[in-house]
Amino acid sequence: MGRTSDAKEKILTAAHSLIEQRGYTALGIAEICKAADVPKGSFYYFFESKEALALAVIDQQWESQCGDWARVLRDDAEPLRRLRRLMEETEAGLREGQQSCGTVSGCMFGNLTLELSNQTEPIRERLKEIFDAQVKMVDEVITEARERGEVSVTDTGEAARSIVAQLEGQVLFAKLYNNTQRLEVLWENCLSLLSAGRAVTVTA
Amino acid sequence: MGRTSDAKEKILTAAHSLIEQRGYTALGIAEICKAADVPKGSFYYFFESKEALALAVIDQQWESQCGDWARVLRDDAEPLRRLRRLMEETEAGLREGQQSCGTVSGCMFGNLTLELSNQTEPIRERLKEIFDAQVKMVDEVITEARERGEVSVTDTGEAARSIVAQLEGQVLFAKLYNNTQRLEVLWENCLSLLSAGRAVTVTA
Repeated sequence: MGRTSDAKEKILTAAHSLIEQRGYTALGIAEICKAADVPKGSFYYFFESKEALALAVIDQQWESQCGDWARVLRDDAEPLRRLRRLMEETEAGLREGQQSCGTVSGCMFGNLTLELSNQTEPIRERLKEIFDAQVKMVDEVITEARERGEVSVTDTGEAARSIVAQLEGQVLFAKLYNNTQRLEVLWENCLSLLSAGRAVTVTA
Repeated sequence: MGRTSDAKEKILTAAHSLIEQRGYTALGIAEICKAADVPKGSFYYFFESKEALALAVIDQQWESQCGDWARVLRDDAEPLRRLRRLMEETEAGLREGQQSCGTVSGCMFGNLTLELSNQTEPIRERLKEIFDAQVKMVDEVITEARERGEVSVTDTGEAARSIVAQLEGQVLFAKLYNNTQRLEVLWENCLSLLSAGRAVTVTA
């Protein structure tokens, strides 16, 4: 049993790394098994298709990232301070990834959205759920900040979506220029998108 | 000669459409030639590789889009009105594309950035040039608006990049949700990112 679940973990880890480096379409099952050092038969024991594997990789990535977002966005600091920390942790995470593999690999969900969302419905649906969940978490924090009179947006859901969109757009540039400094502007842009007066600008 | 250049155009048109639908990695040269209805030998007469073809498709797309951007951003209307029109035309263009092919295919440059920019240097370089040119065109308009006292940003280049990033992020969502209404918020977000007072909000 131990060895069996090891094989599944090895496949997931190898697929995660290969999808980050080269996307979904470029991957073959034989290549994934080779990178995972498991026989090809193991693959079909755990996953019925490459798409099923991709969904499992996406779920595993979101489980981890959702935990990080919840830790930051739902702690007991002031709401805007938590949002600022999310931007800073995102930048730090991409910088660490760049240091370990040489390039900014970007956001797996954004990458797969542009590569696949008009091609496979199950992956599109999963990515929609994830982005909806991200927007909801940011919306909760903005709503709290509005109750405290710190931001003046009327539609908190739309503002949250714009913040996530800005994040994805700047991560796209960080990947293109292989430069995480592109992300330093995120927090200022959040404040602008929230119509937050500079008076409430929170320090790190 | 007529027939020869026809074949090149046919290959470019077919590749453009296939790259929009399914990205770069999924494409094979045989498939492109079949869609273009040209013999495979023609391909290598015009293009030395699939990468060379992709660069030609990117250049052709940018030549067309750059013309559109220049027409809108460099006419003689007030600067913020021109920027607003760029957002509206972008939304209208994606809506037209959706009506003709059923799905929002997004921005070819954004799609290829996330699919390829950490894999092929020549494509990364070309995409950087294009996004730099977009940012420069938006920067010119913001600089003009600032000279008229209509926006209060200090770093016009950074503001221009944030506007292009917001555009790419919202187009990503439009593709994911197959819904161009996601783009209606673009203009309000531009104003926020420019710290433009609502007093200078320009009407369509």
